[in-house]
Amino acid sequence: MLAWMNRESLRETLETGKAVYWSRSRNKIWRKGEESGNEQVVREVRIDCDADVIILQVEQGGNIACHTGRTSCFYRVLEDGHWIETDPVIKDPAEIYHRE
Amino acid sequence: MLAWMNRESLRETLETGKAVYWSRSRNKIWRKGEESGNEQVVREVRIDCDADVIILQVEQGGNIACHTGRTSCFYRVLEDGHWIETDPVIKDPAEIYHRE
Repeated sequence: MLAWMNRESLRETLETGKAVYWSRSRNKIWRKGEESGNEQVVREVRIDCDADVIILQVEQGGNIACHTGRTSCFYRVLEDGHWIETDPVIKDPAEIYHRE
Repeated sequence: MLAWMNRESLRETLETGKAVYWSRSRNKIWRKGEESGNEQVVREVRIDCDADVIILQVEQGGNIACHTGRTSCFYRVLEDGHWIETDPVIKDPAEIYHRE
């Protein structure tokens, strides 16, 4: 998955050891797993050459990072001009998210 | 590495099978390797759940993707509050780039 961070989310990520992002759509701090329960425990933090991209290696709770119920958000691969789904839905999102 | 694409760069990437990005700093199409010679031959293209991020799996020319002369831009890992360089410089950037 790819998500955004700001200074606050990065600080909390490093302090707690759990991935925290900045939700641009909700305009607030996003503690990964706060709704789904599928937290990310941080194992390694890398930064790129110009220090504006971070890679977190994580232990993914529930083996589900994607809101579609899949392990990865990158579950579609391009083949002959078509996007082919390669990764299965592990859990129905309706069972993951219980919004009122 | 992480870079930006626009419609034109993605189209050329798919047509040529070589990674093409959009350079925001230079404000123009960036054919990866056009200066360094270290092209990226695309092996797989994946897209994420909301279709705004692409992962290219590539065969990296010269085994150098980073302008610092390293394989990866993500050559620093966080250890005890310090960024530690883990990956070696394969080739001196001065030997890679021959700007006038």
